[in-house]
Amino acid sequence: MHTSYSRIIENAFEEVKALPDAGELATYIPELANVDPSKLGMHMTCIDGNHFGIGDDLHKFSIQSIAKVLSLTLAYKIVGEPLWERVDVEPSGTKFDSLLLLESYKGIPRNPFINSGAIVICDILMTHLKDTKVEFLEFVRELSDLPKLNYSDKIADSEKRTGYRNVALCNFIKSFGNITNEPEEVLDFYFDMCSLEMTCQEVSRTFGFLANEGCKISDGTKIITKNKCKRINALMLTCGFYDESGEFAFRVGLPGKSGVGGGIVALYPKNYAMVVWSPKLNKHGNSYKGMELLEKVTTHSEMSIF
Amino acid sequence: MHTSYSRIIENAFEEVKALPDAGELATYIPELANVDPSKLGMHMTCIDGNHFGIGDDLHKFSIQSIAKVLSLTLAYKIVGEPLWERVDVEPSGTKFDSLLLLESYKGIPRNPFINSGAIVICDILMTHLKDTKVEFLEFVRELSDLPKLNYSDKIADSEKRTGYRNVALCNFIKSFGNITNEPEEVLDFYFDMCSLEMTCQEVSRTFGFLANEGCKISDGTKIITKNKCKRINALMLTCGFYDESGEFAFRVGLPGKSGVGGGIVALYPKNYAMVVWSPKLNKHGNSYKGMELLEKVTTHSEMSIF
Amino acid sequence: MHTSYSRIIENAFEEVKALPDAGELATYIPELANVDPSKLGMHMTCIDGNHFGIGDDLHKFSIQSIAKVLSLTLAYKIVGEPLWERVDVEPSGTKFDSLLLLESYKGIPRNPFINSGAIVICDILMTHLKDTKVEFLEFVRELSDLPKLNYSDKIADSEKRTGYRNVALCNFIKSFGNITNEPEEVLDFYFDMCSLEMTCQEVSRTFGFLANEGCKISDGTKIITKNKCKRINALMLTCGFYDESGEFAFRVGLPGKSGVGGGIVALYPKNYAMVVWSPKLNKHGNSYKGMELLEKVTTHSEMSIF
Amino acid sequence: MHTSYSRIIENAFEEVKALPDAGELATYIPELANVDPSKLGMHMTCIDGNHFGIGDDLHKFSIQSIAKVLSLTLAYKIVGEPLWERVDVEPSGTKFDSLLLLESYKGIPRNPFINSGAIVICDILMTHLKDTKVEFLEFVRELSDLPKLNYSDKIADSEKRTGYRNVALCNFIKSFGNITNEPEEVLDFYFDMCSLEMTCQEVSRTFGFLANEGCKISDGTKIITKNKCKRINALMLTCGFYDESGEFAFRVGLPGKSGVGGGIVALYPKNYAMVVWSPKLNKHGNSYKGMELLEKVTTHSEMSIF
Repeated sequence: MHTSYSRIIENAFEEVKALPDAGELATYIPELANVDPSKLGMHMTCIDGNHFGIGDDLHKFSIQSIAKVLSLTLAYKIVGEPLWERVDVEPSGTKFDSLLLLESYKGIPRNPFINSGAIVICDILMTHLKDTKVEFLEFVRELSDLPKLNYSDKIADSEKRTGYRNVALCNFIKSFGNITNEPEEVLDFYFDMCSLEMTCQEVSRTFGFLANEGCKISDGTKIITKNKCKRINALMLTCGFYDESGEFAFRVGLPGKSGVGGGIVALYPKNYAMVVWSPKLNKHGNSYKGMELLEKVTTHSEMSIF
Repeated sequence: MHTSYSRIIENAFEEVKALPDAGELATYIPELANVDPSKLGMHMTCIDGNHFGIGDDLHKFSIQSIAKVLSLTLAYKIVGEPLWERVDVEPSGTKFDSLLLLESYKGIPRNPFINSGAIVICDILMTHLKDTKVEFLEFVRELSDLPKLNYSDKIADSEKRTGYRNVALCNFIKSFGNITNEPEEVLDFYFDMCSLEMTCQEVSRTFGFLANEGCKISDGTKIITKNKCKRINALMLTCGFYDESGEFAFRVGLPGKSGVGGGIVALYPKNYAMVVWSPKLNKHGNSYKGMELLEKVTTHSEMSIF
Repeated sequence: MHTSYSRIIENAFEEVKALPDAGELATYIPELANVDPSKLGMHMTCIDGNHFGIGDDLHKFSIQSIAKVLSLTLAYKIVGEPLWERVDVEPSGTKFDSLLLLESYKGIPRNPFINSGAIVICDILMTHLKDTKVEFLEFVRELSDLPKLNYSDKIADSEKRTGYRNVALCNFIKSFGNITNEPEEVLDFYFDMCSLEMTCQEVSRTFGFLANEGCKISDGTKIITKNKCKRINALMLTCGFYDESGEFAFRVGLPGKSGVGGGIVALYPKNYAMVVWSPKLNKHGNSYKGMELLEKVTTHSEMSIF
Repeated sequence: MHTSYSRIIENAFEEVKALPDAGELATYIPELANVDPSKLGMHMTCIDGNHFGIGDDLHKFSIQSIAKVLSLTLAYKIVGEPLWERVDVEPSGTKFDSLLLLESYKGIPRNPFINSGAIVICDILMTHLKDTKVEFLEFVRELSDLPKLNYSDKIADSEKRTGYRNVALCNFIKSFGNITNEPEEVLDFYFDMCSLEMTCQEVSRTFGFLANEGCKISDGTKIITKNKCKRINALMLTCGFYDESGEFAFRVGLPGKSGVGGGIVALYPKNYAMVVWSPKLNKHGNSYKGMELLEKVTTHSEMSIF
């Protein structure tokens, strides 16, 4: 970690910390409404192994949709390019849980990061793995060096009780024939997948391989090929923030993925993985202060892929 | 120019040259249908001034929508951030001349690279410049070091006679109040702007400043700030290829912009500007062989921002 | 029954019978694919009690969506005008199971005859009745003078196993808060409701009250007020045939309602209820020969509300 | 005119007259904003030649879209059924000037009463008539027994200066090939057609033939066949009120057509043509008090086609 980077981060953190509260807690998953809305943390893990954190970066939060990048990675690793016959790679221009485009595109989700696409990825994993929940968890444990990581029943149950929109999405896709397994079982895995809880530090460690051309930073293990790594990063840039993906690329200039738990991971390929967390969301469902913080850090450090 | 780059380009060129013909010539502008469909050229200009070309890279073609990046650059330079109150920065997920989203977003085009957005940019330039056509031409002449560059009346007239869809777009936006000048005059400039003709070499020279943090490569003149340059590049990545923007980011991994004349410009920031030209278009309106060529070059050279 | 009417019907029947087979059997409910596709029947019940039938008019068929008029009648009778806060009265312009407009209208179905609207009506009945399935069946038994009428488990089970699109619709509406009961229970009633089987004769008798200003033809019992009767008829005219409602009004000129079992009921207010049945459907999901037959009868008899 | 009818009308008129002002004047045609918003008139012409009026029924107003029924009648008379290859007969479910569905249906308007459809009808008339403006005017003069009726330049010019949305519609349809003549000329006729001014009495006389099986009431001249008359009436019922057509059928129960000048014509086939006028419009662009008045009259008199 260069000293100059840490100073930039510290200054940006103080500025954003002082901003008036804006945005709303995610309410559609009741359990997420119980989080302390004033939390703010950030952690950066560089590919040389250095890392640096500030604020609530060691406090666990629900990573929610951030996990979709991990399930996509595992499915892409297993299935390869035929994966893209089941899900497209285009920005959707619509909200995260929209059903609109599914109708025009006959059950092919626009990309793997909106809910419909992530549900199809879950279905694909279930078809290729014996014990999907266990094997996916093993994969994330390996990436994160957290051998005891587990799904959060409390979060998953909370969403299972109220996730009518996702039940609708899954059954709608099934009606087009693009879900192979039983909707109920696919959703059960989907809700569990989204329930993982980690700290900023842990998430930045977990995502390090995407900043490191597909290899785990701690020990160099090849998780995925360089070419697949590049493509996942491209997808995060064009599709990682629902109908605000263009805005994030425009303001921050890095591939990233947000979750309604208020976390955002951003990657500077060949440099670092950076994670911010602040629970209040803007109207597009992305962390309000998280986006502010990332914009300040990348603008001041002039670190961007563009 | 590294020797290895030129070898990669030569090999990719031969491979793509040999591909069976696919795609169709743009027919909606009658004049474009007269182009030799077998043309294939490429030219790369590096920020150190080296450049390298192959095939029909010294043959002039109609740059069409590629010019939209130049009009955006001029408008952004003049107006600054308030520009984005008139046009958004999100991928549209729809065809280049779609009217669909304009209705939902009350006349605010999704981004400056779809036709509706480019028309609004033309309107903005007309409001801020005295003699818009002349001043825009001066701007492109300076960027391209082509003091005699001129609009092509033949191309512009051809489109003016048949461009009903663009007349519809412009009047539709006017009905929402997001066009200030008379639709007829705005379109007159828009069609002229798209009529510029250049060679691959000339376009790659013209776009060099976007690969060079906003400064002209030949003499270092600052065209636009580093931050604005980064943002224009981000927009090209998320929105440069209509409803195939995600696919281009996924396969090629560089910011770029296509035109229905069959040209594509792609930028590797801090490295080079590369232009390909092949007139036959895929169903999304982007050059079929152009995309193939760019994918091969970037994959084999492992040059990508991701 | 005037002799002239029966002659017109006989002639029209022979003409349509002789038409080449067109259309397809409904396949999305597996059980419906087992029906003899050559069946053709028609029965007319006049408000003076006379009735007249031809062809397979005494053969039972699955009335499917035709039942939606009966559930609407019962709900309207119970709830009155506040019913329309939960469902609108506008033609949808889309397919029977489209989710598109639900998103724009925030979970308020466009009308009670598309699937989404009929599901909301089922939810409303469940909230107001103690034993919904039994009480709805009682209501239809009274209208039809069929004390032993019952749901068809075979049809209902067939649809329950494959009705993913309806599961999607119901959960989608629930996510907007416009379903009060559990989606699973609402759908269980919905599928049962659509499973009723009757003959053309029985359906025309059942629907007689709508041709008779709200009163049962056989004994004059007032089922619903004159004003409500008029309004249900108006709804059948504007919304009874999904995205072919305009076509039916244009060609036939009577209020009506179709079902994917191939049945159509049409009403000439203050005159008669007429039912046709032919299982093969056009691309809009309406009986191909049924519509032909109704058009011929109404055109030749000059019986139309216009 | 039965005495009982006139009493019902008088009572309804007083009730509605006393209602608090609601709705807004049409502002998008500047000239229409100069009308006295308190005007309220009604006139009924029966097929036996009796007629009856109340309030401002002898005051001229701009009939606007009501004229679309007359241009459709003339085009249908000339072209016959092939007319429907150029325009459909389905309710649109969208606002009067929406472009949305034109994109999905490739330039075929959903029906002849939304702006896009009426523009196509104008184009068809221009193709079949020598001097379209003169011949259409002759046709309306004959129907209305107003030999001096003329277009209003003031109204037409006002709309020509501001009708950007209609310019957009016409050019959009032209881009799909469903306009044959020059957009500018088609629109010139369209704006003139909509500029006609008449009183309630005159409009009800003009539309009498549609209540009288296609024959002029005053002298029995056959304007159109019985079958075509029935079909035009059916279209008015399903499509006469834009996205409020279902509501009008539901509440009033008669075929009708509204204009943004605040007029509404409603027909009780084989009985009468009734015209109301009150300039303030509800959010769907239909006369607020006009709809109230028609609902009261038809409900109390129990005159409805259902």
